[in-house]
Amino acid sequence: MPRGSALSQSLIDTAHALADAARAETLAHFRNPGLDAANKAAAGFDPVTEGDRAAEAAMRAILAERRPGDGVFGEEYGITRGSSGLTWVLDPIDGTRGFLSGTPTWGVLIAACEGTRPVYGIIDQPFIGERFEGGLGVARYRGPQGEAPLRSRQGVALKDAILFSTFPEIGTAQEAARFREVSARARLTRFGMDCYAYGLLALGHVDLVIEAGLQRYDIAGPIAVIEAAGGIVTDWQGGPADEGGRILAAGSPELHAEALALLSGTAAEGAA
Amino acid sequence: MPRGSALSQSLIDTAHALADAARAETLAHFRNPGLDAANKAAAGFDPVTEGDRAAEAAMRAILAERRPGDGVFGEEYGITRGSSGLTWVLDPIDGTRGFLSGTPTWGVLIAACEGTRPVYGIIDQPFIGERFEGGLGVARYRGPQGEAPLRSRQGVALKDAILFSTFPEIGTAQEAARFREVSARARLTRFGMDCYAYGLLALGHVDLVIEAGLQRYDIAGPIAVIEAAGGIVTDWQGGPADEGGRILAAGSPELHAEALALLSGTAAEGAA
Repeated sequence: MPRGSALSQSLIDTAHALADAARAETLAHFRNPGLDAANKAAAGFDPVTEGDRAAEAAMRAILAERRPGDGVFGEEYGITRGSSGLTWVLDPIDGTRGFLSGTPTWGVLIAACEGTRPVYGIIDQPFIGERFEGGLGVARYRGPQGEAPLRSRQGVALKDAILFSTFPEIGTAQEAARFREVSARARLTRFGMDCYAYGLLALGHVDLVIEAGLQRYDIAGPIAVIEAAGGIVTDWQGGPADEGGRILAAGSPELHAEALALLSGTAAEGAA
Repeated sequence: MPRGSALSQSLIDTAHALADAARAETLAHFRNPGLDAANKAAAGFDPVTEGDRAAEAAMRAILAERRPGDGVFGEEYGITRGSSGLTWVLDPIDGTRGFLSGTPTWGVLIAACEGTRPVYGIIDQPFIGERFEGGLGVARYRGPQGEAPLRSRQGVALKDAILFSTFPEIGTAQEAARFREVSARARLTRFGMDCYAYGLLALGHVDLVIEAGLQRYDIAGPIAVIEAAGGIVTDWQGGPADEGGRILAAGSPELHAEALALLSGTAAEGAA
């Protein structure tokens, strides 16, 4: 899709309209004492809140009016097929557990995809009022202190890198062991930021984000934002991460290669 | 100290002046690309930033002018003895690692103490613009959505509780095992929020915070805020936590007792 074209601008405008609508719906429910979390999962704790559903419904209503030919894939209401070749991938609240706990690091994730490829994305944090957007020629941050370009940090080796992941118990035992290979060599490892960590990577403050078991809607928006900022997102074998799974996001190609060698198991013995 | 007295009001006003000054100094350094973290620790990673030092210096300057007879104990510049019986305990940036990573859950911690007892405290998050304050008759929150009273959540059993801790590798191996006893029984465990978790506990969204190895300046402010909101903070044996160490903060007396039994090792076998 040509950058700066009328279609590009229309997609960007639509994405911001979606983010604005989701901001209003999620904030209406955030930190409400009566917040009711139904339990989606038969076992474990997988909360769905009114905020999730209301935000996705509001975004779908906008798309039905403005982009009726596009497909939609959302976490809460599944797949609506389209005819335009373009699909909107929506996670109305990424980090529902954080949302339920009152933390400010959940986010609304929006991606416009050609096929499975994210060409434009938004990570929005409604409570703080921060928006990270990237793709179609844009790489921009807006927050309480104003606007800034998104540029991932370059020239950082793994030993100096800041690494984020959502849970310390990442994936399977084997996945967790691979993660620890990277973590043990990084300068600093932090947990618990959900999608906010991808925004910080695009903003140049975090160098690596590693996750396992993600869904397409967890990563499509962040991929577009991070790539626009100069970073790289792949799976743990260096292949496309567009459909989720195991995720390695890095601020620079060199750091990506260093972490990938450990995650894929191809690092030479004793290399580090 | 009598609530509502002229002295109380003067202390509260002074504390807000300190928080305002620290807000300006920390924000001047937050998310600066050139942020330089000196390495305080001989081994490991214990960053001190310009923001820490500037914020504590600014707070000390205000105290020297407004409350010259009071003592000061700050993380960066140590102890200044006073003659009034009142000591200000200051952590200019609690969560320096989070600060360096660009996350919004670090905070400025301020406490006014009689002896070692915190009688009034502030947890301030400058970037979001949130302030949690408690003590001397006040229990109040101000944030981007406005003002609210601070009231910790009551009537939540451990099986329904939300538990926070900063690091998954809490304390020693024995301490970590005790922590896991509680974590395994809680509804949800989250990591990585630093002092922000204490604010969320006082606001009624988080039920338990458990930490080990804290310093006095890490906990004095939160103790005053949480107690004013109706919560309880002790060490892992139920004794005072005013000087740091192992911390158990709970929203209600019943939940505190349930967690304390597990942390202190006095829970009956098979009780849970």
